[in-house]
Amino acid sequence: MAETTEYDLIVIGGGPAGYAGAIRAGQLGKKVACIEQERAGGTCLNWGCIPTKALLKSAELYQKMKKSDIHGITAKEVSFDFAKVIERSRGVSNQMAKGVEFLLKKNKVDYFIGRGLVNAPGMVSITEGEHKGKFFKTKNILVATGCKMRHIPGLDYDGVRVMTSREALAATHQPKSVIIVGAGAIGVEFAYFYNALGTKVTLVEMLPQILPVEDDEVSKTLHRALEKQGIAIHTGTTCENFRVGKNSVKVDLAKDGKKTEIEAETLLSAIGVVANIDGVLANNVKPELDRNFLKVGDDYQTTVKGIYGAGDIIGPPWLAHVATFEAVSAVNGMFGHGTPKRVKLFPGCTYCQPQVASTGLTEKAAKEKKLDYKVGKFPFTASGKAVASADSDGFVKVISDAKTGEIYGAHIIGAEATELIAEYGLAVEMEATVDEIHQTIHAHPTLSEALMEAAAATTGEAIHI
Amino acid sequence: MAETTEYDLIVIGGGPAGYAGAIRAGQLGKKVACIEQERAGGTCLNWGCIPTKALLKSAELYQKMKKSDIHGITAKEVSFDFAKVIERSRGVSNQMAKGVEFLLKKNKVDYFIGRGLVNAPGMVSITEGEHKGKFFKTKNILVATGCKMRHIPGLDYDGVRVMTSREALAATHQPKSVIIVGAGAIGVEFAYFYNALGTKVTLVEMLPQILPVEDDEVSKTLHRALEKQGIAIHTGTTCENFRVGKNSVKVDLAKDGKKTEIEAETLLSAIGVVANIDGVLANNVKPELDRNFLKVGDDYQTTVKGIYGAGDIIGPPWLAHVATFEAVSAVNGMFGHGTPKRVKLFPGCTYCQPQVASTGLTEKAAKEKKLDYKVGKFPFTASGKAVASADSDGFVKVISDAKTGEIYGAHIIGAEATELIAEYGLAVEMEATVDEIHQTIHAHPTLSEALMEAAAATTGEAIHI
Repeated sequence: MAETTEYDLIVIGGGPAGYAGAIRAGQLGKKVACIEQERAGGTCLNWGCIPTKALLKSAELYQKMKKSDIHGITAKEVSFDFAKVIERSRGVSNQMAKGVEFLLKKNKVDYFIGRGLVNAPGMVSITEGEHKGKFFKTKNILVATGCKMRHIPGLDYDGVRVMTSREALAATHQPKSVIIVGAGAIGVEFAYFYNALGTKVTLVEMLPQILPVEDDEVSKTLHRALEKQGIAIHTGTTCENFRVGKNSVKVDLAKDGKKTEIEAETLLSAIGVVANIDGVLANNVKPELDRNFLKVGDDYQTTVKGIYGAGDIIGPPWLAHVATFEAVSAVNGMFGHGTPKRVKLFPGCTYCQPQVASTGLTEKAAKEKKLDYKVGKFPFTASGKAVASADSDGFVKVISDAKTGEIYGAHIIGAEATELIAEYGLAVEMEATVDEIHQTIHAHPTLSEALMEAAAATTGEAIHI
Repeated sequence: MAETTEYDLIVIGGGPAGYAGAIRAGQLGKKVACIEQERAGGTCLNWGCIPTKALLKSAELYQKMKKSDIHGITAKEVSFDFAKVIERSRGVSNQMAKGVEFLLKKNKVDYFIGRGLVNAPGMVSITEGEHKGKFFKTKNILVATGCKMRHIPGLDYDGVRVMTSREALAATHQPKSVIIVGAGAIGVEFAYFYNALGTKVTLVEMLPQILPVEDDEVSKTLHRALEKQGIAIHTGTTCENFRVGKNSVKVDLAKDGKKTEIEAETLLSAIGVVANIDGVLANNVKPELDRNFLKVGDDYQTTVKGIYGAGDIIGPPWLAHVATFEAVSAVNGMFGHGTPKRVKLFPGCTYCQPQVASTGLTEKAAKEKKLDYKVGKFPFTASGKAVASADSDGFVKVISDAKTGEIYGAHIIGAEATELIAEYGLAVEMEATVDEIHQTIHAHPTLSEALMEAAAATTGEAIHI
């Protein structure tokens, strides 16, 4: 015990939950520390949401440039430097991580690089890294250690033959071919990225549809669009018998009792995440866990008083924006600033092209809940802005109560879907009705008009279909 | 009187007010006709909002391609074919106009090409064009003849030396230099477009700021951005003594008593609109007018019973989305489907880069109304998505009641501002507070998070600044 300092709050983990929670405590004038073992910003900022968006932007631009003649623009020898694409993405992460470090400082958060350990309620130490050996007393602890990518057992994730998104984000060599296992948001985004830059992509999903959590119609539309772009997609298919060779990986695809061998230069697995719980809690600290995720109450407190959890470490949906909300809400509650709120509603986004975004219930979920619902749909082919932009794939679908019109969920596939979903996010949060969306004047010409027209379509009042 | 047919409604004008009103009446099962003298879709679709968006898309893409190396993408000889850029834009208008014609048919609207004349309440004839001589009886008349571009007196708008946006949209020759008179949305969009494609642009505005209706801070930020792009801007400046020569136009710029002569290949005037009222009303039909615009009541009825007006012809703000809303609202009221609603709140958009969009009160207006307001601001430089997209100019500014937090207005300058404004449009419509925006989980990483952070900044709770 080299040192003791007493804090109001120590946050373990500097990702979207951890840094946001620490900053919020700083805003509230609390004495707070944040311990991060790697880099401020966590997975999201360093190895997830942010760097992938930089990669996808490059891929999109390359695709647009190859087709620029439809806009009257020409260019010769359109090409790319894969290493530079990756490099730029790392640069963006680096810039944002520095930004977070600046924000921590600005909000008077003591920031420690190292591995935080909860020794007991009110006691935290640093067990590895630059600040190893430091020991702190604290009134509250927020565990926000997040998750890491799940590995396929038995495979060596060497970053060349076998990768998760994390290794892929650093790999400056472009594979000629790749097998992507798992067609959730991460798998689909990498499939789009590699394919857009000319890698031969095979995308394999165990469940019956890609983006399994999205509305069936959206998934089907995306499936067709990605196939048209050249991606080989196998749904309802499992991967067996991984054979990693010197120059390639071979996998058996099993579907309906049949097996087919496929081979590619690289395998990227995107099969979910596991909790970062090892080495976070001393042996005598035993909050209740659920499959290694911390169980928390409505105030984000674990079953051990004074130890809170927020973000990926408390379980799904494993989304940065949910993590941030949880941490801020937990900290507000901890210090008497409002009643903490557990997350029930959140948007989900996939940044391939066409983009996919949703909030609230899918049609399937509405059916399963036996709700009396109506569907309103509007295609982007009928949107003047989409046609003017030569970007008219996709549609908006809104699900609402058949009697009251209250919006249960909204689903968008198409250009800027991930931005457009914000309006429906607010609508569901505020318990708005489709009529209220319809009666709100939307700027013309914008893609957002499609949100209004889908709402109007619910009652047969859309003008442009 | 070659023929008489009795209608429930005859709409004169086939633009965003006219066609939408006609379609709505068709949806309500009414017998309806729409008379358009030129092409379905009106100015917006044929000579305004839609074709300009196609032009701007080409200009944006050209700019992005010239700077693609920051994304790791390279190309040689990036160039454009101006005639093709214009041609594509005409093609988009043509496609959308056909779409509107299809929608009219689908909704059983009798569509006549010609010039409609209100002979009396309940009587309409066609005085020119294909269906000249037709005469109709009708229960209701909706005048939706819109506006046309105001001309500078004494100038010959030949489409070569002197143009409005209308002539510019058809001109397949790119001028080497252009003087744009008027820095409202149209003037600014053409300034961006021409400058992006290499034309030397001088933009002149009589009022103290470009985009005079927008928030001062937004206008200032855009002013700097456009100047940085290479546009010469003169605000608080009037144009005098126009001299149109064989190969150029000369104009004196007058500011603070000083005059400077400037010269360009072409002059584009964007100084507002005048009502399309000539030849619409027979001499004996005299609804009250206000500077040639139809005066209407809360039910959109003019002072003559049975004659309604909607869209640009009833006066400002002269926006397509407002026109559509008015016409649909008027028609609903006419046929007993709900109470008509006059427009008080609407978004405004300018599609240059960075884009500008707003809804509700500017800070200046809030001051003038002596409201007790607060400002929340968030810059896109602090947005992960904006940085990843290399598009981080601009900010979000929200103005709300200092006590209740109710949102008075929102102002966005930056990438996709015209789409992002939709959420704040709904928020103001629903009388949401900044706290409700702040408590709505926004997807990460999106530009829309900046809307949430600006709301949070109002109370010092933004995480990322």
